Amino acid sequence: MGKGELTRQAILEKATALASAVGLGGLTIGKLAEELELSKSGLFAHFGSKESLQVAILERAADRFVELIIRPALRAPRGEPRLRSLFEHWRQWPKLYSMPGGCIFVAASVELDGQPGPARDLLVKQQRDWLDVLASTVRGAITEGHFRKDVDPEQFAHDLYGAMLIYHHALWLLRDPKAEKRAVRAFENLVEAARRPQ
Amino acid sequence: MGKGELTRQAILEKATALASAVGLGGLTIGKLAEELELSKSGLFAHFGSKESLQVAILERAADRFVELIIRPALRAPRGEPRLRSLFEHWRQWPKLYSMPGGCIFVAASVELDGQPGPARDLLVKQQRDWLDVLASTVRGAITEGHFRKDVDPEQFAHDLYGAMLIYHHALWLLRDPKAEKRAVRAFENLVEAARRPQ
Repeated sequence: MGKGELTRQAILEKATALASAVGLGGLTIGKLAEELELSKSGLFAHFGSKESLQVAILERAADRFVELIIRPALRAPRGEPRLRSLFEHWRQWPKLYSMPGGCIFVAASVELDGQPGPARDLLVKQQRDWLDVLASTVRGAITEGHFRKDVDPEQFAHDLYGAMLIYHHALWLLRDPKAEKRAVRAFENLVEAARRPQ
Repeated sequence: MGKGELTRQAILEKATALASAVGLGGLTIGKLAEELELSKSGLFAHFGSKESLQVAILERAADRFVELIIRPALRAPRGEPRLRSLFEHWRQWPKLYSMPGGCIFVAASVELDGQPGPARDLLVKQQRDWLDVLASTVRGAITEGHFRKDVDPEQFAHDLYGAMLIYHHALWLLRDPKAEKRAVRAFENLVEAARRPQ
């Protein structure tokens, strides 16, 4: 990896930290240049436009998400242990990737949902891929006999994502001291329901 | 209600519709003036600042939420029927209050979480109040014998809110044709778990 690529990644990680606080919409190349004490023209040479910067931020975040969340979880045995490991790493994600204002994907989902374009298209693809990873991990838990055969893996993935979204809401907006405890309870409730013989 | 108050409410509802698409952060008094073909100075006379406008938008939205969601649900019998009615009205909320870009509270939650000030303070209070309404409705279902005595009403409210957040994610970002079906399933799963004898 050349020096240029390292610089680009370092810039993107600072940009993500900033966007996690002010939002993707609030992040202009001018503001980023000011924050990093770099020249605006230099940043334009790297990213070209605000929208390309948004795309680059999402791409870099997804690469890091694979490295920090998915790869470590793959070391856990297939089935419920792997699902549990995914959920635990996922909960730590804003800390692991230094996003002081919370998850960039949660922010982008709300900010971009009504804004057609390459950044939104990329985000939708990333979110579907992630739901697929979750559903396929649930499928693994069925194959291993940890979960009942009639559990709906897509519904489980959907519900688990809901548990994560309300966790973020409770943590970042409400500053609820019970946010962590509630997230763990929500996960355990989903797992217990999927295990329970009918 | 005087003409001035009616005008103010009409302006706030247009402002909310606009903010639901461009975000609260993207909504300036200038942009609103342009959209409504009103004078910028007139709007300043009504609202004073962007932040007061945000506060007024949230206040008006909460009033309408009570009228459109909570009041009709109170007509249902206490307990599970009332909880069900709340959830059904809540799902329709973006349509009932004409928010073409989705729920203003969901957008504001992500936009304001890192921005201290009166708008954030108000939103936090509104969100806690709403979680209290949900929890107290669940408590009613326990009293009526619809739900088990050991159900945790706050956890249920939290999980139900999670189901609503992922519903919005699936609907507005992913445009998932199964979003509605999954939301209903998530609700039924929560209710079934709360009913099941242990």
